[in-house]
Amino acid sequence: MSKQTIYYTLTDEAPALATASLLPIFSSFAKEADIELKLTDISLAGRILAAFSDRLPEDQRVEDGLSFLGELTAEPTANFIKLPNISASIPQLNAAIKELQGQGYDIPSYPEKATSDEEKDTLARYAKLLGSAVNPVLRQGNSDRRAPAAVKAFARKHPHSMGEWKKTSQTHADYMRDGDFFSSEQSITMDKAQDVRIEFVDKSGNIELKKTLPLLEGEVLDGMRMSASKLRSFFEQSLEEAKDAGIMWSLHVKATMMKVSHPIVFGHAVTVFYKEVWDKFGDLFDQIGVNPNNGLGSVYDKIKSLPQSQQDDILQAIHDCYEHRPEIAMVDSVRGITNLHVPSDVIVDASMPAMIRNSGKMWGRDGKPKDTKAVMPESTYARIYQEVINFCKTNGAFDPTTMGTVPNVGLMAQKAEEYGSHDKTFEVKQDGTMRVLDAAGNVLMQHDVEKGDIWRACQTKDAAIKDWVKLGVTRARNSDTPAVFWLDAERAHDNELRKKVELYLKDHDLEGLDIRIMSYNEAIRFSMERIIRGQDTISVTGNVLRDYLTDLFPIMELGTSAKMLSIVPMLNGGGMYETGAGGSAPKHVQQLQEENYLRWDSLGEFLATAVSFEELGIKQGNKKATVLAKCLDKATGKLLENNKSPSRKIGDIDNRGSHFYLAMYWAQELAAQSEDSTLAQKFAPLAKQLTDNEATILAELAAVQGKPANLNGYYHMDLEEIFKVMRPSQTFNAALESL
Amino acid sequence: MSKQTIYYTLTDEAPALATASLLPIFSSFAKEADIELKLTDISLAGRILAAFSDRLPEDQRVEDGLSFLGELTAEPTANFIKLPNISASIPQLNAAIKELQGQGYDIPSYPEKATSDEEKDTLARYAKLLGSAVNPVLRQGNSDRRAPAAVKAFARKHPHSMGEWKKTSQTHADYMRDGDFFSSEQSITMDKAQDVRIEFVDKSGNIELKKTLPLLEGEVLDGMRMSASKLRSFFEQSLEEAKDAGIMWSLHVKATMMKVSHPIVFGHAVTVFYKEVWDKFGDLFDQIGVNPNNGLGSVYDKIKSLPQSQQDDILQAIHDCYEHRPEIAMVDSVRGITNLHVPSDVIVDASMPAMIRNSGKMWGRDGKPKDTKAVMPESTYARIYQEVINFCKTNGAFDPTTMGTVPNVGLMAQKAEEYGSHDKTFEVKQDGTMRVLDAAGNVLMQHDVEKGDIWRACQTKDAAIKDWVKLGVTRARNSDTPAVFWLDAERAHDNELRKKVELYLKDHDLEGLDIRIMSYNEAIRFSMERIIRGQDTISVTGNVLRDYLTDLFPIMELGTSAKMLSIVPMLNGGGMYETGAGGSAPKHVQQLQEENYLRWDSLGEFLATAVSFEELGIKQGNKKATVLAKCLDKATGKLLENNKSPSRKIGDIDNRGSHFYLAMYWAQELAAQSEDSTLAQKFAPLAKQLTDNEATILAELAAVQGKPANLNGYYHMDLEEIFKVMRPSQTFNAALESL
Repeated sequence: MSKQTIYYTLTDEAPALATASLLPIFSSFAKEADIELKLTDISLAGRILAAFSDRLPEDQRVEDGLSFLGELTAEPTANFIKLPNISASIPQLNAAIKELQGQGYDIPSYPEKATSDEEKDTLARYAKLLGSAVNPVLRQGNSDRRAPAAVKAFARKHPHSMGEWKKTSQTHADYMRDGDFFSSEQSITMDKAQDVRIEFVDKSGNIELKKTLPLLEGEVLDGMRMSASKLRSFFEQSLEEAKDAGIMWSLHVKATMMKVSHPIVFGHAVTVFYKEVWDKFGDLFDQIGVNPNNGLGSVYDKIKSLPQSQQDDILQAIHDCYEHRPEIAMVDSVRGITNLHVPSDVIVDASMPAMIRNSGKMWGRDGKPKDTKAVMPESTYARIYQEVINFCKTNGAFDPTTMGTVPNVGLMAQKAEEYGSHDKTFEVKQDGTMRVLDAAGNVLMQHDVEKGDIWRACQTKDAAIKDWVKLGVTRARNSDTPAVFWLDAERAHDNELRKKVELYLKDHDLEGLDIRIMSYNEAIRFSMERIIRGQDTISVTGNVLRDYLTDLFPIMELGTSAKMLSIVPMLNGGGMYETGAGGSAPKHVQQLQEENYLRWDSLGEFLATAVSFEELGIKQGNKKATVLAKCLDKATGKLLENNKSPSRKIGDIDNRGSHFYLAMYWAQELAAQSEDSTLAQKFAPLAKQLTDNEATILAELAAVQGKPANLNGYYHMDLEEIFKVMRPSQTFNAALESL
Repeated sequence: MSKQTIYYTLTDEAPALATASLLPIFSSFAKEADIELKLTDISLAGRILAAFSDRLPEDQRVEDGLSFLGELTAEPTANFIKLPNISASIPQLNAAIKELQGQGYDIPSYPEKATSDEEKDTLARYAKLLGSAVNPVLRQGNSDRRAPAAVKAFARKHPHSMGEWKKTSQTHADYMRDGDFFSSEQSITMDKAQDVRIEFVDKSGNIELKKTLPLLEGEVLDGMRMSASKLRSFFEQSLEEAKDAGIMWSLHVKATMMKVSHPIVFGHAVTVFYKEVWDKFGDLFDQIGVNPNNGLGSVYDKIKSLPQSQQDDILQAIHDCYEHRPEIAMVDSVRGITNLHVPSDVIVDASMPAMIRNSGKMWGRDGKPKDTKAVMPESTYARIYQEVINFCKTNGAFDPTTMGTVPNVGLMAQKAEEYGSHDKTFEVKQDGTMRVLDAAGNVLMQHDVEKGDIWRACQTKDAAIKDWVKLGVTRARNSDTPAVFWLDAERAHDNELRKKVELYLKDHDLEGLDIRIMSYNEAIRFSMERIIRGQDTISVTGNVLRDYLTDLFPIMELGTSAKMLSIVPMLNGGGMYETGAGGSAPKHVQQLQEENYLRWDSLGEFLATAVSFEELGIKQGNKKATVLAKCLDKATGKLLENNKSPSRKIGDIDNRGSHFYLAMYWAQELAAQSEDSTLAQKFAPLAKQLTDNEATILAELAAVQGKPANLNGYYHMDLEEIFKVMRPSQTFNAALESL
């Protein structure tokens, strides 16, 4: 049997730190099944260096891990484990660049304005690194996410805290009723492969080609427009309503993922909230490079170059705004960081479930939880949150001890839908018409637009949809659970999809399955009515809902989405095994730096790696891999049952201690199993060693806690250093090496 | 052609006053089609006198109008028009008795406690008059209610006011989550006709026969229990929640209709709200005959017999309760009448829509509208109001200018469901078991009960269900509108009904019809989602929902339920044509007494009478009746279009002026039509007379406004006197007589 490879990604922040402790364990165990785990760098810093490799000296060049894995996705044998990585906002990108420059890498700064060809080239390279740049490359398949049985059982037995919901809560979701993408969406299905042109026509009839899109037969193409003036009126009205009602105001977008449209939306929120500031200082801000799309933080940053008296005037003007505006939700009330400071701070798919779990409250300036108007301008998906809020007001908070589960099958392959829209999203520069023409010059769709409007096209490929329908049916069959296709009859795009869904469902044996098609509000209500009765419902959704729901339901059910099993069965047969979201990872790094304690929970990595082994067993006939997988799952169950997950605070076991227990339980399971006697014999001594030395190892791990740890970097940590930091138990290390 | 008869009911309050003006018009016109309109007294006072006719002198005896009409319902030719009447609470009954005694009728007072045989007999006679005593006798068919096209068109063009809904409203519906009828309902369908026994078994095994019920084959029988202790805990918790949230508390029951169970529920609300008062004075209250089921008003009434100092103590104790209780919603803030004063003051099916129309607010002690916790202990139907409230918070108030309509087909025949449950509703006297046994002694259903619990059985006859299904299908076909059967999968009763519905639907041609079955929440949400998009949806519901929905939707759509067309196609072929609800009738009487102005709108009578004529045309081949009907409908449309409905305030045209216009338009239409030349010739002079004398007649009608009017009674008005009061225009009267 030839050596088999699992690629294990090196990402950023807490997950990267955890990898330094966990990967050596996985590798040691895996090699007994002739499996090699290869670390592949897709960190933000790694991607920056790879992007400028040609400009760096030989010894500073790095391999482009993301490109490598991207190519690998086409291979039927692809098998890799993808940990959460940074979806960089511009402030994050700038920080990473600065750090690398400080470490002696001669890479260019991010150009605010690109005029020279070199600057344009630099900007183009950085543009590819911004936002959600990794997932679109790697997710060459649809998405299959669910709460593993052991995790769900654990949550039912040891429920996380859930804030009580009052029937009188004033919290609500607010969204545009007109003028948004939802209200203007047009959609067509291509009857043949062809290039279509996206054009802007100005009031004088001048035509500007914005983009040519090569489309496949059966591909669904959408066009839609968000009105800037209606967006701004909506913000103003929402602010006045919140002020009148005496509740907080909060904005929930996803500027990292929707990296073109949402920063613009965010910028409008900033300039409406602080209208008087921009009225007075707008021209000055333009001169000094304040970009509202980067948040109020951009003001604080850029005005440092101004004379103190001018800075004071600006700060006073900002302060004056708070007088007539509603209280704004805080990201960090201690540090005074509001919801509008940095666009990447509040990410709707994480922030809304957190609010819902917290009695519908966000944090005020005084650090107290308060009812809030949760503003999500685009109504398409925002409506589901209002449905959830109404449900919680009526039925109380969800109960993790009794609730069912909502797994997801998400349409994600080939950059489906909005998540592949960035290169065809435009901020309109003047009044006119945006239109899409086919190869013969026929107008396929068009929108009247005004200066400042956001227009975008989305694509969804037929093969992706067909595979998604198949995956939905397969999951319904394998789980014996009702599956609901979330398709909204009032969305043009969904109506195109519905035709395909109805067609492709005919390819499958549906006998005995409960498969339905519902609008979003119907679907989420149906799922919630079932969930509170302990019943499970598979959500089969588009790409954005996939993202939202795989945070929303897991956070209710499990307290976190990090515990979800997330599989991407590649269209070409390979598989990517993703581990949980990294929403709170930065805080974890800070804690490690301050007190050498990492509270990151690697449960997602345990689960993903087990499935990765399992797949090798199935696809490559590697029976030892199957045994490793089974025993790893059992070890994970035992770890949960014995509560050996990392605690939140110093003194308890942290990420490293949890890894030790996983290794011990895994070795014990392998030693005890009878399917493969070679493995049993091999792991028996390790099991004994770890079991006998439990106290010693724990003591060695505990000994380092409480002192600062130096990583020599945040975005580009010193790998040798972090392996040292994360593997402080000589006894444990030696035991692993003895294998 | 033999003379045909339409029976026109004499009822109470404003509708009775309006009849004195309107009936002479109808009669004058009808006699030209050989139709006689006969006034039949079913007023509360009339029913009291009829009940004690045997004890009255010859000259005071009256015919029993209700019994007469009740018998008439069995006739295929039955045709009568039923105006709103008083569903008497005990305080109302007492007031009526007192008035009659004052008028010289020697009838007995309502006995608080019946010990002697005579008292028992008296109590039994009065029991039959209490609450909703008329409808169960007359409604020998299912219910078909809808907004006539002319009325709907008028409302769209001239919308009534609708209070704006805030997204931050704290108003909500609150109901028991456990221990109510919903949670304990059991249901069976009889496989053969037989007598069943309702028994109470005490803890020692002693059996008390509560009632024997003769059941038909296929009849559905339900049994259910409301726990008094859980009801009281629920009230306490709801009061604390409202107090904590700083919103008002309000109770919404239907003590008049649910005349056995709801007064008990109301009584518990009173003794929980004023707990300290009952703790301290409960024994005294028992001695002096205070009955909490009659409301706090009963306290104020009964304590008058006590020494002043004791009265003061009691009043102080009541006052003290307000200190730690939430603000209570007011029925009349000027007079200090709270929601808990009189059980008949707040009627859920009218009060909830009024609140929803009023921005979700009720009136506070200071006369200001405020958010409220709307308490409806029984959850079965209460949930739909929370669904509506959530919907309004999310989507804003309904818009009468664009909204669709929700007509209703209601299961009502043969005292279906809860509305026929009064004689099998029991307040449990001690802990034990309530059970139902079949003729063979098998236990069909049973509930453990505690002292104070309310247990009830409900019956629904197969023939009624079959006819209801047919009526639902017929209406869907005739209106070409989707129809939804509201059947809740979590209700035992509805699951029995569902089997029959699915079976009986097979008897009908459903080709091209959209007929669905949904749970209540699904159904109301579905209907609301459609209604805001201008689409119509027929609700095919049980008896209580019939009652609730035919107030809820009409009040949103038309501003009042009085404008609905309400038909009862009798099981035996006849028809009853009901006119709108009389919810605000007492205020109207007061206004007439004070300033001789009656703002009652007789639109319902116009619509019902037209259908009544139409039916004579169809069933009896009376072609002149058909012409009368058509022209009456046109006249009604013209009246709406020209805004000749009564205004609310003195100076404008009132009920009488509106009747004049109806007569004028009707005569004009009859003169103008060409279907029946005899009628045209007959009515041409009248049309001319009325048209020519419009100004004179209006002046004669206006002349009486502003001065008090004497009716010589409230419950038992002097008929001659009210005909005089209601027909003050000699010119108009003479014109009618000229026919």
